[in-house]
Amino acid sequence: MRLSLVALAVAMLAPASGVMAQTAPTWPDAAATDPVAVGWMVGSPPPPERRIRFEDLSFMRFPQIRWSFSHWRELLPTAEISRGDGPVSVLPVALRDDLNAVTFTPMGGDAPITWEQSLAENYTDGILVMHRGRIVYERYFGALTPHGQHIAHSVTKSFVGTAAAMLIAEGGLDRDARVDRYLPELADSAFADATVGQVLDMTTGLAYTEVYTDPNSDAFAFVRAGGMMPRPPGYDGPTTSYDYLKTVQKAGEHGQGFTYKSVNTEVAGWLVSRVSGKPLDEVLSERFWIPLGMERDAYIQVDSSGAGYAAGGLNLQLRDFARFCEMMRNGGRFNDRQVVPEAVVADIAAGGDPEAFKTGGYATLPGWSYHNQWWVSHNADGAYMARGVHGQACYVDPRAEMIIVRFASNPRAGNALIDPMSLPAYQAVADRLMAAPEH
Amino acid sequence: MRLSLVALAVAMLAPASGVMAQTAPTWPDAAATDPVAVGWMVGSPPPPERRIRFEDLSFMRFPQIRWSFSHWRELLPTAEISRGDGPVSVLPVALRDDLNAVTFTPMGGDAPITWEQSLAENYTDGILVMHRGRIVYERYFGALTPHGQHIAHSVTKSFVGTAAAMLIAEGGLDRDARVDRYLPELADSAFADATVGQVLDMTTGLAYTEVYTDPNSDAFAFVRAGGMMPRPPGYDGPTTSYDYLKTVQKAGEHGQGFTYKSVNTEVAGWLVSRVSGKPLDEVLSERFWIPLGMERDAYIQVDSSGAGYAAGGLNLQLRDFARFCEMMRNGGRFNDRQVVPEAVVADIAAGGDPEAFKTGGYATLPGWSYHNQWWVSHNADGAYMARGVHGQACYVDPRAEMIIVRFASNPRAGNALIDPMSLPAYQAVADRLMAAPEH
Repeated sequence: MRLSLVALAVAMLAPASGVMAQTAPTWPDAAATDPVAVGWMVGSPPPPERRIRFEDLSFMRFPQIRWSFSHWRELLPTAEISRGDGPVSVLPVALRDDLNAVTFTPMGGDAPITWEQSLAENYTDGILVMHRGRIVYERYFGALTPHGQHIAHSVTKSFVGTAAAMLIAEGGLDRDARVDRYLPELADSAFADATVGQVLDMTTGLAYTEVYTDPNSDAFAFVRAGGMMPRPPGYDGPTTSYDYLKTVQKAGEHGQGFTYKSVNTEVAGWLVSRVSGKPLDEVLSERFWIPLGMERDAYIQVDSSGAGYAAGGLNLQLRDFARFCEMMRNGGRFNDRQVVPEAVVADIAAGGDPEAFKTGGYATLPGWSYHNQWWVSHNADGAYMARGVHGQACYVDPRAEMIIVRFASNPRAGNALIDPMSLPAYQAVADRLMAAPEH
Repeated sequence: MRLSLVALAVAMLAPASGVMAQTAPTWPDAAATDPVAVGWMVGSPPPPERRIRFEDLSFMRFPQIRWSFSHWRELLPTAEISRGDGPVSVLPVALRDDLNAVTFTPMGGDAPITWEQSLAENYTDGILVMHRGRIVYERYFGALTPHGQHIAHSVTKSFVGTAAAMLIAEGGLDRDARVDRYLPELADSAFADATVGQVLDMTTGLAYTEVYTDPNSDAFAFVRAGGMMPRPPGYDGPTTSYDYLKTVQKAGEHGQGFTYKSVNTEVAGWLVSRVSGKPLDEVLSERFWIPLGMERDAYIQVDSSGAGYAAGGLNLQLRDFARFCEMMRNGGRFNDRQVVPEAVVADIAAGGDPEAFKTGGYATLPGWSYHNQWWVSHNADGAYMARGVHGQACYVDPRAEMIIVRFASNPRAGNALIDPMSLPAYQAVADRLMAAPEH
């Protein structure tokens, strides 16, 4: 059980964490773990050794995640995020084969590899590049199909953070107000005297550990409460995410620096639901799925009180992920609508305080910052990202007029282990598109 | 716990059962239990007394079912039934207000009531009448919206039975073959020497009880195995529906008469999956959702092996339910396609053996029969039905060129208690449409 706990925790809770000091093990490669070739969950019933279940944690183990990340709803309760009945927004396509041959040298590497080679190295399930509003690259692997939905993990946070920022812009939520003004239920918790902004930027001081090598880490209590992980026999802890948040106590002061702790996003999700008077699935539908003209309904994992898992429960189609990401690049505009106020997008893109970010300990992200649940590079291109464990990403490069969205089932949980093969690749594609915009 | 078990069992396993000898209690009416007015699951989080959960069985209690039947996926793991990417088939609309005033006298009643009044009496969540291919009546109540999905309960059986009959017509499945020819895993069970046809017509002889007033009834073991009901601490029984089926033993001989036992349908679902080489969700997608041009993806509850709950796990939109039902009325043709072979539909509509049906003990269905998971009236109109617990129905009246589909959350579980207010109403509407076809 100890190993299983660690595996789950690493998988579920280590989004982009540089805190993880795990030594990188060697994993079987993407071809050897292709979930279709392996035949996970094939057969009526699948043979026991090819079954993937929630109860035994196999759904969070590698290589099983190569299947489960594209089949999340079959394992857990979920709520629909409706796209409504409107027309699907158009995504023009102008594919460019030349991108396959783009080369880059991974961080810490000594030999260049091609973009196409990197896709397998990253255990990519789906990847889509848009340039100047057109799809220039789109590939699917393993268990993911163009029609399929994939878990976004902590990319969910950026959807929730953007919704929160919209509420702030509209005046419904005060970024400088204390959390307990909106959520009196958190009066006895660490969050009571944190500001909304501190929660959104993850600069709260919390006696809450996300140490994935320690089965007693608080992170496990959080996921057990929210039903993201099976509960042991005789479990008598909290049975909802919100009830867990009430138990989180303070350590140090708020506003002292960035530390990535998923419970902040659960508070942000709760704030969004409280202020809007709607559950997260409805908020995401009204704020994004309907106005963006999404192709497919999406869904979000829910706990036993019906609350959407704000820190990591969103599942969506790759093309719809691209619509969201492209909308950000376009200053909030997409599908002939101003979906997010331009000022909200500009504020996110401008980022937070790189000094405060240093406490996060992200070696692969020097000079970056974190703001409203987005990761901001402050590089020459002004790039910023939504990032999720195991390689989920929305990468916006404003100067290159490019976005990249990726779903993956990389055995490496933390993006710190994935960035070396990803960030230089994204930059190389951006550079190619800038050098040859009309291929 | 004892009462809860009974409540769940009645709700979940008593589809159309005439075996139930329960005396009818008095229930609060539809208006008093309107789930939107009551505010189930509203709030972030909902107050404890307004929460509906899987673990405590509240999702199967009345009046909570008025909400949960339209929110099934939020409580349990489910698999999508894809409609594909094709165009939505057209359902012409020509509404007729005159149907509201149609009157009928309920079975055993002494005073007529109107069709419109009967909708509340039946705790209707959604109802749609088509006449000569056009929607003439469509209403939604409570937690169900036109866009929403509702659990079909045992109506699922008729979808599965139709798919099985198609496989038989195509030669992939032999109606006269023994079940163990296809499912050697059932060699030591009662089903081994039953024929496919006996399973489909529920004339197997099984040592399996569906006695809803007895918490030790086999029916509880079945739903616990399939995950349709929480398992007690220390549970060490089977953890999939198929594993449960292996334990069912024989009582008497097969082919002696009809007895409604849901495990037969699980065998039928297993046969369909085995022979087609596809899980039930894919079968339903390919056989019905794609060719019928359904409006929305549907979904089916799955167990821990990924098997769809053939006996009752389908959730779908009301208009898509109408498309399926209208396709049956049209001899299998819909959306400019022959979706189901005409001979398959004719065979279902012709029904089974009314003599064999008498062993079922359905007082409200004199002269009826059961064939391929459909209920056949053998009345003057040649009507036949798909029926699900708590009032789910597809009613095909060939002579009246009419179909009626209904979703409901009637506190009365068995259709034996619902038929008195339903079957005469359906006939009255059919009579009205025949008398005044061009209103």
